[in-house]
This record gives sequence, C-alpha cells and structure tokens, in this order.
Amino acid sequence: MVYELYYWPGVQGRGEFVRLAMEEGGARYRDVARESGKGAGIQGMMRLLNDLETPPFAPPILRAGRLLIGQTANILQFLGPRLKIAPNTEAGRLWTHQLQLTIADFLVEIHDTHHPVAGSLYYEDQKKEARRRAADFVNNRMPKYLGYFEKVLAQHVSGERYMLGAKFTYVDLSIFQVIAGLHYAFPNATRKAARKYPRIFALHTRIQERPRIAAYLASPRRIPFNNDGIFRHYPELDAG
Amino acid sequence: MVYELYYWPGVQGRGEFVRLAMEEGGARYRDVARESGKGAGIQGMMRLLNDLETPPFAPPILRAGRLLIGQTANILQFLGPRLKIAPNTEAGRLWTHQLQLTIADFLVEIHDTHHPVAGSLYYEDQKKEARRRAADFVNNRMPKYLGYFEKVLAQHVSGERYMLGAKFTYVDLSIFQVIAGLHYAFPNATRKAARKYPRIFALHTRIQERPRIAAYLASPRRIPFNNDGIFRHYPELDAG
Repeated sequence: MVYELYYWPGVQGRGEFVRLAMEEGGARYRDVARESGKGAGIQGMMRLLNDLETPPFAPPILRAGRLLIGQTANILQFLGPRLKIAPNTEAGRLWTHQLQLTIADFLVEIHDTHHPVAGSLYYEDQKKEARRRAADFVNNRMPKYLGYFEKVLAQHVSGERYMLGAKFTYVDLSIFQVIAGLHYAFPNATRKAARKYPRIFALHTRIQERPRIAAYLASPRRIPFNNDGIFRHYPELDAG
Repeated sequence: MVYELYYWPGVQGRGEFVRLAMEEGGARYRDVARESGKGAGIQGMMRLLNDLETPPFAPPILRAGRLLIGQTANILQFLGPRLKIAPNTEAGRLWTHQLQLTIADFLVEIHDTHHPVAGSLYYEDQKKEARRRAADFVNNRMPKYLGYFEKVLAQHVSGERYMLGAKFTYVDLSIFQVIAGLHYAFPNATRKAARKYPRIFALHTRIQERPRIAAYLASPRRIPFNNDGIFRHYPELDAG
C-alpha cells in the first residue's frame, strides 16, 4: 500500500502531523500536492474536495486504497494501528485519540493568535486584535494546555517516557510538532515554558532524536517553518 | 449499562450532542453534574478532571463502566455503534467521525463569534472584535460550512434523507443541534440560509420530529438555549 497525502505545499500545517506519523511508521507514501503532473499539485488536491462519495471539508486528505479520509485526527486514528504507533486495546485507542483531539483544539487556538478575526484577512488587517488574543494565549491558554499535557506525562506509574507511559504512539509525534512550532512562533514564551513543564520538553527532545524522525527533519521532505502556516513568528505577539 | 454524562449544568454546550445521541439511542444515562449528592454536581465533574489514568482536558466527559472518555466527537464515536446510530463498516465509521469533526470545527467558529479574544473575558470586553469576527462568520464561514453539509446531503444517490444517505447516524442529530443553535443565535442570517440550503434545514425538521427527539425536546431534560452557551444571541452580531 502506498499512501497518498494531499496537503497545501509550502507549509507544514496540519499535514505535518500526518507526515510525522508516516515517517516514523516507515510508511510508503506520496506527498501528492507537492508533486507535479496529472492528478498531482494543488489541482489534484482540490479535485478531491469534490469527491462524489466522501468529499472532505479541507486538507489534509489521505488516500488509502479506496478510502479517502479527512480530518487530521481521523487520519491518525486510521494510520495508528496500521503503522503500529497506536495501542492495541479499544480503551487505549480512545485515550490516544482523545489526546490528539485536545492537541487539535490547541492548534486552533495557536492559529487564531495571528488570525483572531478572519482567516481570509491579512495579519496586518487584524494586528490589534491579534495582540490582545496572543496576550491571552501566552498568559492563559498555552500554560493551560502545556500544564495539562505535563500532568498526563507526570502521572504515569509505568514511567514518563511517552504520553501513554511506556507505550510510544502517534500522539508523541504530535506533541513534538507542537513544541517545535511553539519554539518557532513564541520563542520567549516557550523558553519560559520549558522550565515550567520540563517533561513535555524532554519528550520533544526524545522524539527529535529518534532515528527516523532525525533523518526526516534533515531531509528536504521537511518544509521549514514559515509565516504562512499555523505557527507564525511575529515578535509583537510573543511579549506575554 | 447506565452511562454517566458529566457536563456544565445550565447550558446545552457540547454536552448536548452527547445527550441527543443517548436520547435517540434509548440509552440509560445519568446527567450527573445536574444532580446533587455525593460524587454529583459540578464538584463531582471537576474531580474527574484529575483522574489518575485518563484525565480529560474538559467536559463533556462520559463514564461507561471502567472507561472515562473525553472529547465530544470521541464520545459519539464510542457510543455510535453501541446505540446503533453509526454505520457498521470501518469506512462508514471513519466518514461519520470525519463529518462530526467538521461539525466540531464549525462549533469553535460559532463560539468565537462572541469570544474572539478570550474565553475568560466578558463579551462586553470584546464587543468590537466580536462584531468584526461575526460579520466574517455570517458572510463567509457559515455559508462555507452549510454549503459543505448541503453538498454532502445533495449528492447521495441513495436519497437525501440523512447525512450518510439512507442510513441515520449520530451526525444527523448533531446537524439538527447546530441548525437549532444557529436559529437561536443568528435568526436573521439563519432565515436567509434556510432558503439557500434547503436540504440541511429539511434534515433539521426531520430530526426534530423523530418521536424520541420530540419527547426529549419537550422534557425538562432539554435545557433551553441561553446566552451562556456556545450559541448566544446578540442582535448586533446578526447583521451580516
């Protein structure tokens, strides 16, 4: 099976959570919207939005044989067991997915720091609102989410290595990506957070050093962070 | 099995999507945070947030035997097959869940019309920003989501009765709730939308008339809409 990922070329965005899972899981996949040719590129991706059976609302989209799957957390839930980066029990899978959905909520809030009024408007047209929203994010929301994930890591009796204790899952990859993105977008706030939530930052480092992830991060397949994605660096939003 | 739902008493909020599923599915359940006594009320709910194995980030929370499940869409995915309001195939379940996650995204945007800066601030303290965000919502985002759901309904060869065609699922209940909420929050914009997206509004009516849903809506178990929930009516945000 060769998986086909469709996501906006040029940004990591939500597609990156799927890429990290496929890289770590050793999946064979194509990053189709970054290719050129028939059925590829942005055009190929846009065509999927008009699929006649299960049209996705938005990228990322995964094609797996005859299945067309949308919504990042849904894609990860599907891939998890197939790539052996999810627990085997129903209870374990529900919990993993629950954590992933909480990360998804966090991502919306991270994105909305620079676009609190409308995704369709430029940042410059909502800069004043962004300052207010980002201040609340840095002071209240970011500590709330990071504190939550730190608590989950801290309370495992089976050890603090991964979000599920001893068991490595795709949620660990997503936590890595969130911390990497926060470092890019809010370097000051994140440096402070690293002292307050040491476990979650240690997890980030541990994931970064996994051989497949390290190789991926050093490859041209990894798109660098930039100010078109979810995580954007505007120094004026990083004051706290 | 008696399910236990924990959600903020006094608002429909995200808990309502779980209630509708349990009501239609004929589940035996307790709405524990609305009860009083030991382990009940808000206090009982807050204690679950410190569960030592799988602490949820926020309500709604469902206790099902030994399982403690958070995240609305995750709860519905769990309940769906058990209450026979989900498809039997993996492909069907992925698609149902995908639609539910898109509804979840829509809900965040609906909520943020009145709280674009911070959930912790009063509406009055972000009224100006709310006006801008609500205008974009009514003119761009609401049509985008409703147009999407209308398209999904319209393209079924097996008939347009439900979001999955001939098969009724928990997603239909959630669509009902969203349309009901939009009617409350944005009566003007929603009246106009009803003409443009007739199928989705017909679905709302069809669900409202299901015997178990009609009985539930007429019961004291259904909390009325009010300005503490996701859907809030501020006439100044309904101009478009």
